Amino acid sequence: MYNVIIIGGMAAGCKAAARLSRLSSDYHITIIERKSIVSFGNCGLPFYASGEVDDLNELAKTSYGVIRDVNYFKDVKNVNVLTKTEVVEINTKRREVICKTEDKEQTTTHLYNALIIATGSKVVEPKFDFPHSPAISSFHSALDAKNFREAAQKGKVRKVVIVGGGFIGCELTEALRSLWGIETILIEKENSLLSNFLDPEISRVVENQIEKNNVQILLSSEVQKIETDEKKLPVTSLTNGNKIESDYLFYNLGVHPETDLAKATGVEIGKLGGIIVDKNMKTNMPNIWAAGDCVETKNLVTGKPDYFPLGSLSNRMGRVAANSIAGKDDSFYGAAGTVSVKVFDMVVSATGLTEKKAKENGYNIGSVIGCWTDRPDYHPEAKDIFGKLVYEKENLKLLGIQLVGEGEVNRYVDVVSELLAKNKTVYDLLNLEHGYMPAHSSPISPLNYLGYMVINQEEDGVLNVNPEKLSSFDGLFIDLREDVEVDTSAFSHNAIHIPLAELRKKLDEFDLNQPIMLICEKGTRAYGAATTFKNCGFKNISYLGGGNNIYKEVNKKFNSYTDSKKTSNENINTLS
Amino acid sequence: MYNVIIIGGMAAGCKAAARLSRLSSDYHITIIERKSIVSFGNCGLPFYASGEVDDLNELAKTSYGVIRDVNYFKDVKNVNVLTKTEVVEINTKRREVICKTEDKEQTTTHLYNALIIATGSKVVEPKFDFPHSPAISSFHSALDAKNFREAAQKGKVRKVVIVGGGFIGCELTEALRSLWGIETILIEKENSLLSNFLDPEISRVVENQIEKNNVQILLSSEVQKIETDEKKLPVTSLTNGNKIESDYLFYNLGVHPETDLAKATGVEIGKLGGIIVDKNMKTNMPNIWAAGDCVETKNLVTGKPDYFPLGSLSNRMGRVAANSIAGKDDSFYGAAGTVSVKVFDMVVSATGLTEKKAKENGYNIGSVIGCWTDRPDYHPEAKDIFGKLVYEKENLKLLGIQLVGEGEVNRYVDVVSELLAKNKTVYDLLNLEHGYMPAHSSPISPLNYLGYMVINQEEDGVLNVNPEKLSSFDGLFIDLREDVEVDTSAFSHNAIHIPLAELRKKLDEFDLNQPIMLICEKGTRAYGAATTFKNCGFKNISYLGGGNNIYKEVNKKFNSYTDSKKTSNENINTLS
Repeated sequence: MYNVIIIGGMAAGCKAAARLSRLSSDYHITIIERKSIVSFGNCGLPFYASGEVDDLNELAKTSYGVIRDVNYFKDVKNVNVLTKTEVVEINTKRREVICKTEDKEQTTTHLYNALIIATGSKVVEPKFDFPHSPAISSFHSALDAKNFREAAQKGKVRKVVIVGGGFIGCELTEALRSLWGIETILIEKENSLLSNFLDPEISRVVENQIEKNNVQILLSSEVQKIETDEKKLPVTSLTNGNKIESDYLFYNLGVHPETDLAKATGVEIGKLGGIIVDKNMKTNMPNIWAAGDCVETKNLVTGKPDYFPLGSLSNRMGRVAANSIAGKDDSFYGAAGTVSVKVFDMVVSATGLTEKKAKENGYNIGSVIGCWTDRPDYHPEAKDIFGKLVYEKENLKLLGIQLVGEGEVNRYVDVVSELLAKNKTVYDLLNLEHGYMPAHSSPISPLNYLGYMVINQEEDGVLNVNPEKLSSFDGLFIDLREDVEVDTSAFSHNAIHIPLAELRKKLDEFDLNQPIMLICEKGTRAYGAATTFKNCGFKNISYLGGGNNIYKEVNKKFNSYTDSKKTSNENINTLS
Repeated sequence: MYNVIIIGGMAAGCKAAARLSRLSSDYHITIIERKSIVSFGNCGLPFYASGEVDDLNELAKTSYGVIRDVNYFKDVKNVNVLTKTEVVEINTKRREVICKTEDKEQTTTHLYNALIIATGSKVVEPKFDFPHSPAISSFHSALDAKNFREAAQKGKVRKVVIVGGGFIGCELTEALRSLWGIETILIEKENSLLSNFLDPEISRVVENQIEKNNVQILLSSEVQKIETDEKKLPVTSLTNGNKIESDYLFYNLGVHPETDLAKATGVEIGKLGGIIVDKNMKTNMPNIWAAGDCVETKNLVTGKPDYFPLGSLSNRMGRVAANSIAGKDDSFYGAAGTVSVKVFDMVVSATGLTEKKAKENGYNIGSVIGCWTDRPDYHPEAKDIFGKLVYEKENLKLLGIQLVGEGEVNRYVDVVSELLAKNKTVYDLLNLEHGYMPAHSSPISPLNYLGYMVINQEEDGVLNVNPEKLSSFDGLFIDLREDVEVDTSAFSHNAIHIPLAELRKKLDEFDLNQPIMLICEKGTRAYGAATTFKNCGFKNISYLGGGNNIYKEVNKKFNSYTDSKKTSNENINTLS
């Protein structure tokens, strides 16, 4: 008998247990879980909160409707599950774990030959003060979701404040707004949402989508404290002096690895707070593996430790840990950090490093930004895709991509994810072959375009300019759009208006040495024309990446948020 | 002055012209096009035929509404376009092309320094006899689509026969059926639709989708001849003696390279009928390049010549030809053959080789087949994905994938497309990182699953059985599904019914040497249980790939189409 103890019954732990049980019937496998449930689809909680998923049990069900409970694991997987049981100590010398049940009355001891720590993550607690109240909660556990939904169902929640504009915060805005019709205010400390995954100019597109759905966003806004009023409802004070009353408040400031037990056991913890494992998910301690949200993993782009608390990776890590225990050759090499989130009708997809993160990691970067329809323009359902590619200037190594749009954007990011994992360069984008079909995609994909744009920028000096950096340009703007486009949505900056078809005839009118920036609606015309200019001897040519289409998005935000304090005041006056 | 002549004004030719014009203003570029239009989005014709795209001109418009006509090319691209002009001879000694205008009255001669042949493809004409009639047509040109739509708009078309179940044929069923409500019969010579891209068992899923939309499919059915009745309407005679009357008939038997001119010029033509080019798109003749649907290209999987008439590839080829002429370093290495098509609500996506094509190419192949929901099971919009992976048995090299489903399937095929281009193996699927988010995908992607299934099959002998090969199995079937599933959709073959949760207790009852096949609804339970069986010492364990879910699809077809003659008769009686 070979005892495997797994601490933690979520994605990584359950996957490891199932895999080990399939590999040999000689393993005596026990999952020890603090809570009352195991193998629970935590990522589905926003859908439960919204009501799209009716019953919490749905999140623990197999495809054929059976709940993955203690009996399921025993009968189907030959795995023992102890719920409501907390491991209070790991004794590595005696190779045993000491547990207490929830009521703290019983202590049990379990010997292990192999131990997997899969304790997951815990929420980052706010630095600001807040009282204990049923109306103030993180959104991390089933209980958090259940409490909110019960309150919402009773009609008690008409206004919600969400603190933290990361993935969960953004997902929640849709759940609250679209499905409950709740007045929603999203507060974010940084000057853009989803700032770990998107640079601000791409984030603007998402922010505008959220705002369009009548969610109020307060960027660059910090919470000072939360109090409760006489009805025990939250009152949020911002550092700028504003106060916001609401019926409910979620704080979602991210998660970090749950490693108290590992630490106490002498398991090595990294700088990011996660357990350090090798590529077989083994820790520094003999017979102890770790997997899932409690570990750090290698960022495949930077080669440095990083932290990616994602269910998809937890599953893979769990499988590798099991294979390693069973002596099978398998490795988890790390992750590029590929993420996807749906925000109202918009899909946000990204992998690798943002410009900001790349710079923090010391890269000398280049970037290009663009906008395209996701299908040929004639297709009645064609939608815009907005995207940004970040690469290393010296060798054109790919560093990261951010794409947002209402159609198929995940597909392009999935491909870049694989390219990043294999250390590929921008040249690998040029002839990428995608499944082309007008109902889903254009013949030239956004990845092909981004590749072309980089090559033109780096090899031919046709510069793609980020819409957030326009103000530093000192030269001539030429607006290449048609009259009707200019009339519909003017571009400021005293641009000269020359429709593309007339440009060639007028090339002689410009000084070869004058800095010229070309702009059009989506950036494609300007990009083509800039290449032409360049090849006609113009020395200093650039074009606005993504055109007026992204500029509008960025600018809209600028108008609303430049003076955060003023805007916040105004908004709050209208709200309260 | 450097004269570049481009013969053919569709994707490849126009792309090459635009690229060259951007690279230098020294080029004097002329596109010579037989028809009256250039740069026309041919792939959009089904959307025009259906009425989704209102005006044919939409297919020639830029994103900002300007038609890409002769003036557009002159003004914007500095490219001369001669329409309604046919090149009748290329004189390679004098480096000139001799043209005739449509009315044949005028002959012009144009000198070239570089020549690009981009003559595209032409339809494969049927071997059967058919009369000239406005109601009998291929579906290849704008005129074909226009004629049909005019007839449909006049209410003259109540019943259409489509001969040929390839991409165009399948796309047309949707255009005809969903948008015009026309009674539609699809006739295919092979025993499955889309047989160049899908093996029959995956094709069944698509066929059932088409049938569900009230299109009648006649497989293994060959047309003997087409006549017209007294009203000049088509009457189709099948080789089995059946006759089908209709108001309109499309034949879509594929396309082949249009190379008459190239041949006459001494340009080398390959065995597949396409122009042979090197990786810079240069032909064997000095100063002559070729690009687009008129060339053969390398299949990146087999390394052999292949033919992929796809707009996406034509664009890339055109760009490479232009770069080559300009002396820039760029290559087109070939293609994996990635395709995508929408058939009613279903997305069909494939790349590389089918099992059939792999075998024809001499590979010793293995394959696995599976079915999964595209999102976690709890997600209200979760839909099935059906898939098959083909690989080389000796080294687990990836050979091809086929995926069909109603959700995001393109993304997985795009990734495999890149893996095929880089000669990767099944091991590369195991830790692929995709953008996971319950609204779009499951934490473990179909690619991860397919990889796991292959490893278990090849390393551990847990065999994945194709639903079409069940009849050759001589052993015990065990149905692991729940009672309610068995009641809803029984599985025949005298399967013993043991719900998964009871299986472990009964393992002792079976003979370790008996061939046992496990089945469940989607194949996942059976796959897991088969691994368990195997590791408990059972020698001969297999499971039904994709479970009853694919089996149902395959079986449904078997019932309807086993006796093609009988079925056809019955159907036709009800139809006429």
